[in-house]
Amino acid sequence: MSRVIANQTITADGYAAGINQSEERPFGEDGGDGWGDRLHAWMFDHAEENRDEVEQLGAARVHIMGRNMFGPVRGEWDREWNGWWGDDPPFHGPVFVLTHHPRDPQPMAGGTTYHFVTDGIEAALVRAREAAGDGDISIQGGADTINQYLAAGLVDELRLHIVPFTLGGGARLFDGVQPLKLEQVYARTASSVIHVTYRVLR
Amino acid sequence: MSRVIANQTITADGYAAGINQSEERPFGEDGGDGWGDRLHAWMFDHAEENRDEVEQLGAARVHIMGRNMFGPVRGEWDREWNGWWGDDPPFHGPVFVLTHHPRDPQPMAGGTTYHFVTDGIEAALVRAREAAGDGDISIQGGADTINQYLAAGLVDELRLHIVPFTLGGGARLFDGVQPLKLEQVYARTASSVIHVTYRVLR
Repeated sequence: MSRVIANQTITADGYAAGINQSEERPFGEDGGDGWGDRLHAWMFDHAEENRDEVEQLGAARVHIMGRNMFGPVRGEWDREWNGWWGDDPPFHGPVFVLTHHPRDPQPMAGGTTYHFVTDGIEAALVRAREAAGDGDISIQGGADTINQYLAAGLVDELRLHIVPFTLGGGARLFDGVQPLKLEQVYARTASSVIHVTYRVLR
Repeated sequence: MSRVIANQTITADGYAAGINQSEERPFGEDGGDGWGDRLHAWMFDHAEENRDEVEQLGAARVHIMGRNMFGPVRGEWDREWNGWWGDDPPFHGPVFVLTHHPRDPQPMAGGTTYHFVTDGIEAALVRAREAAGDGDISIQGGADTINQYLAAGLVDELRLHIVPFTLGGGARLFDGVQPLKLEQVYARTASSVIHVTYRVLR
């Protein structure tokens, strides 16, 4: 059976993005000196050292993400926006985007199709399971989306990448989620990131 | 010159203790099933596997701690309380306890003496530096005390031990602290804990 895996890069104080996310600063403010942009340096600037974890990110067959992760458009889809990832996104499969505003599916190059789901996280997961078969489902974020799935008890594994700075505010992983028992099933340290996979115990 | 090192065991969601700390439950509530007590299992139940980090905990020459870490007595010192650690505490040197209520120094076995400092965190650090010479100073906790020192820019190194569960509320490390730039100078994973040392960049 497919696993539901949440993937998130977080700061040492647990934030996945700073306050006031915008198109110019998708990961929000960080005190003004660009450290928020370093959240994902581990996968871009240090890709070789972190090759296993970068490959894992792309290994899921189906993806789910929140609308704020998909892009900066709020409310109705009144302008063209097909994600942050260009014409050939790295997902290579169905991506279910959670939104309150209906929109037709958007096929992209390389096998990625964005589907827009308006009836909630559980409905999105049902559709993701249908599409995934026995492949894994990755909940890509942001933190609010992962927190909703954690609170609903729908996450099997949590793959965190902890980077060496703090943001002091913003979107925090685990915010509003009841206490969880976890099993540390994988952990590896690299030069400027800690990778850890927790299995969520039930 | 001596370094100021903050040591803290935290959950995956960054808490050093749950809500409603008490004498019976010094690490607070955790949903009622005792997982809060597992915060420090890595140093007691798995001491051999984590020997290096346990030894580091005791390597500082002088210690500072908040009153809530020292014990459950609030307000005046109207009952006898000499810490959670028995007659021969593991500190083997001066321990400066932050409090609003004066009290005479309390010598213990093994070289530990509890000194009670009523004039704030900076005054306590001045006294700790005098006592430490070129030895290290350990800020033992709790999270509120470490957060005050972090906010004041007085911490050189942060040694965290991240354990696999969440508490969802309580005393959270980094709460109220401005964004920090860190350098990951040491990291090691054990079977059910991640040890990481961050140098605080200025």
